[in-house]
Amino acid sequence: MNLANLTTAKIIKGILENDVALVSKAITLIESTNTAHRIMANEIIQACISKNYETLRIGITGVPGVGKSTFIEQFGNHLTEKGKKVAVLTVDPSSSRTKGSILGDKTRMTELAKNPNAYIRPSASGTSLGGVARKTRESIMVLEAAGYNTIIIETIGVGQSETAVHSMVDFFLLLKIAGAGDELQGIKRGIMEMADLIVINKADGNNIKNAELSKIEFTRALHMFPPKENGWSAEVLTCSALENKGLKEIWQVISTYCSLMKENGFFVKNRQNQNEQWLLQYLEQELLTAFHNHEITKDLLPKLKEEVINGSISPFAAAEKLLKLLKIP
Amino acid sequence: MNLANLTTAKIIKGILENDVALVSKAITLIESTNTAHRIMANEIIQACISKNYETLRIGITGVPGVGKSTFIEQFGNHLTEKGKKVAVLTVDPSSSRTKGSILGDKTRMTELAKNPNAYIRPSASGTSLGGVARKTRESIMVLEAAGYNTIIIETIGVGQSETAVHSMVDFFLLLKIAGAGDELQGIKRGIMEMADLIVINKADGNNIKNAELSKIEFTRALHMFPPKENGWSAEVLTCSALENKGLKEIWQVISTYCSLMKENGFFVKNRQNQNEQWLLQYLEQELLTAFHNHEITKDLLPKLKEEVINGSISPFAAAEKLLKLLKIP
Repeated sequence: MNLANLTTAKIIKGILENDVALVSKAITLIESTNTAHRIMANEIIQACISKNYETLRIGITGVPGVGKSTFIEQFGNHLTEKGKKVAVLTVDPSSSRTKGSILGDKTRMTELAKNPNAYIRPSASGTSLGGVARKTRESIMVLEAAGYNTIIIETIGVGQSETAVHSMVDFFLLLKIAGAGDELQGIKRGIMEMADLIVINKADGNNIKNAELSKIEFTRALHMFPPKENGWSAEVLTCSALENKGLKEIWQVISTYCSLMKENGFFVKNRQNQNEQWLLQYLEQELLTAFHNHEITKDLLPKLKEEVINGSISPFAAAEKLLKLLKIP
Repeated sequence: MNLANLTTAKIIKGILENDVALVSKAITLIESTNTAHRIMANEIIQACISKNYETLRIGITGVPGVGKSTFIEQFGNHLTEKGKKVAVLTVDPSSSRTKGSILGDKTRMTELAKNPNAYIRPSASGTSLGGVARKTRESIMVLEAAGYNTIIIETIGVGQSETAVHSMVDFFLLLKIAGAGDELQGIKRGIMEMADLIVINKADGNNIKNAELSKIEFTRALHMFPPKENGWSAEVLTCSALENKGLKEIWQVISTYCSLMKENGFFVKNRQNQNEQWLLQYLEQELLTAFHNHEITKDLLPKLKEEVINGSISPFAAAEKLLKLLKIP
C-alpha cells in the first residue's frame, strides 16, 4: 500500500472500521515530518477526537531490567482475555530504532504481537521528548477511534519521559523489582508521587521473600507523601509476570481506581485538565522554538550567555537587550 | 531624601560606601514599576555586578511556626559577632505588607534590626513569584556591592518560593520542628532534595527528646536520596534559637560546605549556572507574558481552551490555529 494513493477520507474510514493496516498508516502520517503528511494527519486526528471516557490509558514505567516487556506482554494478554482491545505504545525519545520498524517491539512481545485483539507500535522516532510525546498523544486518539479501549503507554524509565507519559494517562503504574534491601535508594525524583500503583515484579522462586519485604518498604515510603488531590492512596502489589501471577489483582486495583475516579468526577476532570495543559504546553514550546530559531537570537544569545557567566552583564540586562532587538513585547 | 534629587551616580557611590539610606533607595528603585526608576535601577545593578565569590548567600525555608524569625535573628547576630556583615531579604510573593514598609520585619527581628552590621529588608511587593524573585536577585547584587558578605534569603515556606530561592543561593537550609512523630508526613515535594542542611529548631525544654528523634528520622529519610552532583550529603542538626544553642554547629556545617564547594569548583560553577538559568528563565517569562498579553491571544485563547476541554478540537490543532494568526514562526 502506498501512502500517496490514500485519501484522508479512506484512512479515516479504515480507522473507524479497525483496519489495522490503515491505523498503522495513520500513525505513520502522524510521525512524519513532511508538511503534506502533517496536513493529512491533522485532518485524521480531528476526525478521531472523541469524548469516549470508556477507554482507559495506562502508563507503565520502570528502569531497564524490571521486566517491562514480559509484564506488558502478559498483562496485555490478560486484558484481551477479559474482552479488552489493547494497544501498546512506547515513549522513548532516545530511541535509535529504525524509523517505522516495529521489529524491536514485536520481538520483545511475541505473544502479544500475535494476539488479534492487541496492537503494538514502537516508539515514534525523534530526539525531542516534546515531539515524541505529541505524536504519542495523537496516536492515542487514532487508536481509540479504531476501537482499542485499553491503551498501554510504556516509558523507558529514564530521562523525563515519565512526566510526559503521566500527563497523558488515566493511571500510572511503577514497575520495580526487589533488590538488595535498600529499595528506595536512587529512586527518581517525583516518580513515587506520580505512581497510582507500585508493582514489585519477579516475585517468583527465591525472590518471593525479597519481593514481600520490598512491598513493605514501599508501602511505608508511600505513607510519607500527602494524599493525592483525587483522594486515591497509591498501593503496592507483587507479581510474577513470568509465572503469570498477580495480574488479576493488578487489574482489580486499576478497575477500583477507575470506578472511584468516575464516581468523584476526577476521571473526566483529569482528561480535561490534560487537554488544557497540552494546549498551553504546546503553545509555549512552539513560541520558544520560534524564539530560539530566530536569526537575532542565534547570533546574540551565545554571546550574552558568555557575558552573563563571566559576570560582565546581569542576566536581566542581557535579556532586555535581546528582547529589545526582537521588538518584544 | 527625595528620589527625584538623586542621580544614579550618587546612589552608586553611596552603595559602594555602605550608605544604608542609599542602599535602601537603590532597592526601592529596583522594586519600582515606574519606567524611569527601572532605567535607573538597571544602571545601578550594572555598576554593582561583581565576581565576588567571597560573599555567601544562604536560603532559609520552613513553614510558618517553625520559628524562622527567631532563628534568623539569633543566627544573624551570631554571624555579625563573627565579623560578618549580614543582610536579610524575604521572598514572599503573597505578601500583603504595605509597600515600602519595613515595620513588619523590624518588629519581627528587633535585635537584629538594631545591629549596625545587619540590614533587614522586607519582601518586595508584587504578586508574581517571577517578579518578586527578580527584584530579590537584583537586591542581592546591590547588597553585596555595599559590603554585606552574608545574605540570608528567607522564604515563607509555601507555594513555589523555595524553588525560586534555591536558584539564587549557595546554601539551602530547611528549618523544621519536632512534631507528633510522623515528621515526614506532608513534607513538600522536592524540598528534602533541595536542602543542604536540615535544622530541627525548638530543641529546648520538654522538646529535646522529640527533636533528637526527629533528627534520626530525617537522617534516615535523607539516605533515600541519591547523592548530589556536587558530592555533598545533606546533614541534620538540632538547635534552639530561643536559647541560642546549636548555632555554632550550624555555621560550622555551612563553612565546611563552602570550603568543599570552593575546592571542587562547584561554588563558582553553581553561581555561573544560576546566572545562565536566570537569563533563560527571564527570557522565557517575558516571551510568554508578551504572548499572553497579545490582543489576538486574549481574544482567542479562552475560546480555544473551552473547545479543547469540550473535546471538539485537539490541543495541537487549537495551538496551531492560534500560532498561525500570530504569524509564529
